[in-house]
Amino acid sequence: MRDCVLLLESDADRAEVDRALRRLGVWSVALGDGTALQVASHSQAVDDRTLASLPGVAKVMMARSEHPLLDAQAGVAVTLGQARGASAPVRCGPGAEPLLLAGPCSAESEETAWQAAAMAAAAGAKVLRGGAFKPRTSPYAYRGDGATALRWLREAADAHGLLLVSEAMSEAHAAEVAEYADVVQVGSRSMASYGLLSAIGTLGRPVLLKRGQSATLQEWRLAAEHLLAAGAAGVVLCERGIAGVDRETRNVLDLGAVALIAGIDGHAIVVDPSHAAGRRDLVVPLAQAGLSAGAHGVLVEAHPDAGNARSDAAQAIDAATLQAIGASVRKAAQREDG
Amino acid sequence: MRDCVLLLESDADRAEVDRALRRLGVWSVALGDGTALQVASHSQAVDDRTLASLPGVAKVMMARSEHPLLDAQAGVAVTLGQARGASAPVRCGPGAEPLLLAGPCSAESEETAWQAAAMAAAAGAKVLRGGAFKPRTSPYAYRGDGATALRWLREAADAHGLLLVSEAMSEAHAAEVAEYADVVQVGSRSMASYGLLSAIGTLGRPVLLKRGQSATLQEWRLAAEHLLAAGAAGVVLCERGIAGVDRETRNVLDLGAVALIAGIDGHAIVVDPSHAAGRRDLVVPLAQAGLSAGAHGVLVEAHPDAGNARSDAAQAIDAATLQAIGASVRKAAQREDG
Amino acid sequence: MRDCVLLLESDADRAEVDRALRRLGVWSVALGDGTALQVASHSQAVDDRTLASLPGVAKVMMARSEHPLLDAQAGVAVTLGQARGASAPVRCGPGAEPLLLAGPCSAESEETAWQAAAMAAAAGAKVLRGGAFKPRTSPYAYRGDGATALRWLREAADAHGLLLVSEAMSEAHAAEVAEYADVVQVGSRSMASYGLLSAIGTLGRPVLLKRGQSATLQEWRLAAEHLLAAGAAGVVLCERGIAGVDRETRNVLDLGAVALIAGIDGHAIVVDPSHAAGRRDLVVPLAQAGLSAGAHGVLVEAHPDAGNARSDAAQAIDAATLQAIGASVRKAAQREDG
Amino acid sequence: MRDCVLLLESDADRAEVDRALRRLGVWSVALGDGTALQVASHSQAVDDRTLASLPGVAKVMMARSEHPLLDAQAGVAVTLGQARGASAPVRCGPGAEPLLLAGPCSAESEETAWQAAAMAAAAGAKVLRGGAFKPRTSPYAYRGDGATALRWLREAADAHGLLLVSEAMSEAHAAEVAEYADVVQVGSRSMASYGLLSAIGTLGRPVLLKRGQSATLQEWRLAAEHLLAAGAAGVVLCERGIAGVDRETRNVLDLGAVALIAGIDGHAIVVDPSHAAGRRDLVVPLAQAGLSAGAHGVLVEAHPDAGNARSDAAQAIDAATLQAIGASVRKAAQREDG
Repeated sequence: MRDCVLLLESDADRAEVDRALRRLGVWSVALGDGTALQVASHSQAVDDRTLASLPGVAKVMMARSEHPLLDAQAGVAVTLGQARGASAPVRCGPGAEPLLLAGPCSAESEETAWQAAAMAAAAGAKVLRGGAFKPRTSPYAYRGDGATALRWLREAADAHGLLLVSEAMSEAHAAEVAEYADVVQVGSRSMASYGLLSAIGTLGRPVLLKRGQSATLQEWRLAAEHLLAAGAAGVVLCERGIAGVDRETRNVLDLGAVALIAGIDGHAIVVDPSHAAGRRDLVVPLAQAGLSAGAHGVLVEAHPDAGNARSDAAQAIDAATLQAIGASVRKAAQREDG
Repeated sequence: MRDCVLLLESDADRAEVDRALRRLGVWSVALGDGTALQVASHSQAVDDRTLASLPGVAKVMMARSEHPLLDAQAGVAVTLGQARGASAPVRCGPGAEPLLLAGPCSAESEETAWQAAAMAAAAGAKVLRGGAFKPRTSPYAYRGDGATALRWLREAADAHGLLLVSEAMSEAHAAEVAEYADVVQVGSRSMASYGLLSAIGTLGRPVLLKRGQSATLQEWRLAAEHLLAAGAAGVVLCERGIAGVDRETRNVLDLGAVALIAGIDGHAIVVDPSHAAGRRDLVVPLAQAGLSAGAHGVLVEAHPDAGNARSDAAQAIDAATLQAIGASVRKAAQREDG
Repeated sequence: MRDCVLLLESDADRAEVDRALRRLGVWSVALGDGTALQVASHSQAVDDRTLASLPGVAKVMMARSEHPLLDAQAGVAVTLGQARGASAPVRCGPGAEPLLLAGPCSAESEETAWQAAAMAAAAGAKVLRGGAFKPRTSPYAYRGDGATALRWLREAADAHGLLLVSEAMSEAHAAEVAEYADVVQVGSRSMASYGLLSAIGTLGRPVLLKRGQSATLQEWRLAAEHLLAAGAAGVVLCERGIAGVDRETRNVLDLGAVALIAGIDGHAIVVDPSHAAGRRDLVVPLAQAGLSAGAHGVLVEAHPDAGNARSDAAQAIDAATLQAIGASVRKAAQREDG
Repeated sequence: MRDCVLLLESDADRAEVDRALRRLGVWSVALGDGTALQVASHSQAVDDRTLASLPGVAKVMMARSEHPLLDAQAGVAVTLGQARGASAPVRCGPGAEPLLLAGPCSAESEETAWQAAAMAAAAGAKVLRGGAFKPRTSPYAYRGDGATALRWLREAADAHGLLLVSEAMSEAHAAEVAEYADVVQVGSRSMASYGLLSAIGTLGRPVLLKRGQSATLQEWRLAAEHLLAAGAAGVVLCERGIAGVDRETRNVLDLGAVALIAGIDGHAIVVDPSHAAGRRDLVVPLAQAGLSAGAHGVLVEAHPDAGNARSDAAQAIDAATLQAIGASVRKAAQREDG
């Protein structure tokens, strides 16, 4: 909840105001002589009218939203595929069916791209994910096949009726990515690289924005606002795990953030269980948990032949596991209908 | 996965070993002249026989488990209620039905205890949770009604056919808690307070062990081992959120840890969505996400009259919300049967 | 800085108020219609009178301190050794000379205790540190020699004119520790174990309170308040590193916290560079950095024969290194005099 | 220390090997049947020859360095100002005098630039820092005056015999920054934005590389390697605080990392106490602590009129405080000479 302070009437029964707030799920701290209450940011979301209507409350002073463009997108699904004239645009977000986005970390051959697209389509995915320009921690690691890979992915996606999402990690290649992909991805490491956000936003495409490893929710929302202010056609947020203290998983999937962004803010959000755990045996339960927390989709690394994948092989799942995740996504869709 | 190193045969095809490992979901780093591979701890769990059988692998050197007593408990549910001769012992863990444990943060009156027990039973809970000795950040906050509250809770639980779990935060009161409660709870702040663990373990009861706010999984498992080594009748782990960087939720529920502990380790584990988020509007989605990740139960703060609760009121849920969580727990039970 | 809100006069020049705040090092956020400003907690410390005197500010509403007993100790050094009638009590904190506290992780033999005391005294330490009851992550690790070790340490300390600090990790042994030690230590893992704090506080001794691995400053201050409320004769805080994301050091020594607690709050605080880094080659620079940040002393693990130490051997320093740290402590003392 | 495993001779006295390792400050874990020891990464740095020479050790298997270009720079100061033909190049790093780099967060007017340069020079700074292109969390905040500001800064720096460091946050402006600045800065939020690193490295200038908020040391070193691989003339690392759990400071200055990078790795590194704490009253002690930990310089935000600064005003220091930091830098220089 946004920064908020309540001024009380001089004759207010403070204990009663307190009880009323707690009934609403609001934590507060008394300020000064007790005639003001500071609302804690981890309180349940309550609008200012409700707060103002409580007996004893004279005035509600809440900070204004810093992201009007993102707010304007609240409660509405983001449409993907429109800009490139996809025959079947796909919606992601509030009110839309949960979405599966799947494919290889990097499309290292034409064959990989085609097999991955077939795998994805067979599992019910509507969007193929695939890397052409790869951010790699080491400058000496395989960085993807660039524009060539984009062409492979595009043709494979088209052949299977899929949309395509691919990461742009450099301003220099952003336009090229947007030429081939329906959705431009911003990676976790670039979430707050504002020069890149600006260049990508300008392209006017929908963007998949991964959360930075130690970004607060507000920093994440404001990165989305950067994209929208520059012209992005919509932003789908993607939670992919934040930095934690344990070595047995790579990151910590923050599903409280997903529940908040999806359920309270009403923004389109998907989860990436592959990067969250970094280990293959946890991808399925984390995908299901993400959907249960309210995510509007699952983005997952799948590879037709994980042993030969040139990047992130150990976290990629095979066709059978992808089918299982596809089934979870469909089940989540039915739950929402029912 | 435990610390592990593979020694390769002198004529091994290293690229082929590498591919075989990746197919198994194993990340590795070459050591020295490349005749040894260090397995990363965030690899998919693979047993040493499988690794040893790979062509080119001469020897597998894995660290031994440091928690033999916890390992002995793997794959088996913990039985609760036996020690006090409960007419209907309850099982929590692998193979058992998902469990609902619910009740007030603190039992601040006999009436609260009874109403809470009624609420819990009506929602399908098998275990009443309730605080008698409360750890409070401030020494001036309400600390619970101690032994009196334990009596209220015990009688209310018995009247509704429920077991009782309550926290012991002091060695001085541990025996008293065990006298009334079927399960003794160790709070997050005391997870690594080994004097207390020893005193509680000695009582021979099953223990609900919350994870410390920045504890690694291995520190958590070893805390369980401390309890078992001292004589605890079984340990149910409880994930309640680790420290994060955001202010809009109180903690980050680490469901990757839950998936790993439940699905790979095979230990009994429940989630506490109330403390994880600290805000009422996220309790239901986080409870569902926890079950989807594989948790064997949900521990939740519920209060018959949240506005009048004397501690943690703003995160307590009401009867209707508790019913919804109870329904989720039952649905999870059906999924596992089906 | 404590939670604080400024109400502005209706005709205030808001831009001018803003500038005046920034000149004071205060960050703020506008609330509501802009007639209130929320002060961010990471602002420079400014008292409410100064804020109230700014043109345009109608009212300053600041949260009250939650730790009056700790506040009462501000600006004054804590006296150690008085309770046991030490011939030469030692002061630690504001206005006192920087202090060296040194000794082995655990006193595993009478010889170790005596050699360590000799080492410590030779390096200029006024306080011998030494473990008798050791918190160990594994229940199967060496846990110290208990009361026997306390006797060794006491005699060795007395022979060298040193005071003694030793950890109490269990309520059961707290009184025994206080019988032999001048200062009772609360370990990092027990910082928020309030049952233990209460038992230790009751003994009426000065306490060395280590910060929990993910404790906020306010949680730490309130743990000190728990001790003081129970009767502790004074609390010296000890920063020993918080949980971080890197594997090459064990913890992150938070010297911003030290600068704040020592320089702004005015509380007695020392640093423990041994546990902070966990590696011997960083102990000296971190000890010096701690003193430069304003710490009132350095607590360091030193062992006469590190290769044979039974716990934490790899981070213990030898006599020559301890001499170097002793010299740094003396140099810091001169800087403050000069 | 890099990933490392020791294979023992079949008749080795394991306890003796263990003691020898501990004497060297090395933590280890036994693998398999005990004939291999895994060295923990937080061990004191020890070279493989020393390990190999221990009785009982048959073979030392250490991972190779992933950053050969950064390694080649170890132990040598980075020369700044050469590329633009500065009359007086400045050295930063091992063996060079500690350096002061100071100036405003953003150069929002010609006057500010000139006054700031005068302030910096008067305090003994050799390098003027100043923002022209500013990364701002909100897209609606002031983003700097771009090329115009660079001109102001350049002229002001030249007039006072200072070098200039300024951030490039976009590939589009990187060349422009390099045209005016002697050192190109990579901000914390862009540390792992590899497209930007590549574009900046290509310019062939020395780079000041800030650490990402949750970056491990190895990720940081590899980001430096990205820059060097692309052609950067040298990299000075800058520690500016990592994400922590407390609200009273903005970040946690990781001085263990500084001690390790400066003292063990031998790389050029400076500290930024302004962004670390985010509050003015902690800048001086953190600057001193950074120098004591071994930093080769201090980068600090200073503004001739903090109340009128358009960004980060509340953490900027004034002329008198800058003088105090300049004195600390000179004192550190004398300590190293002495």
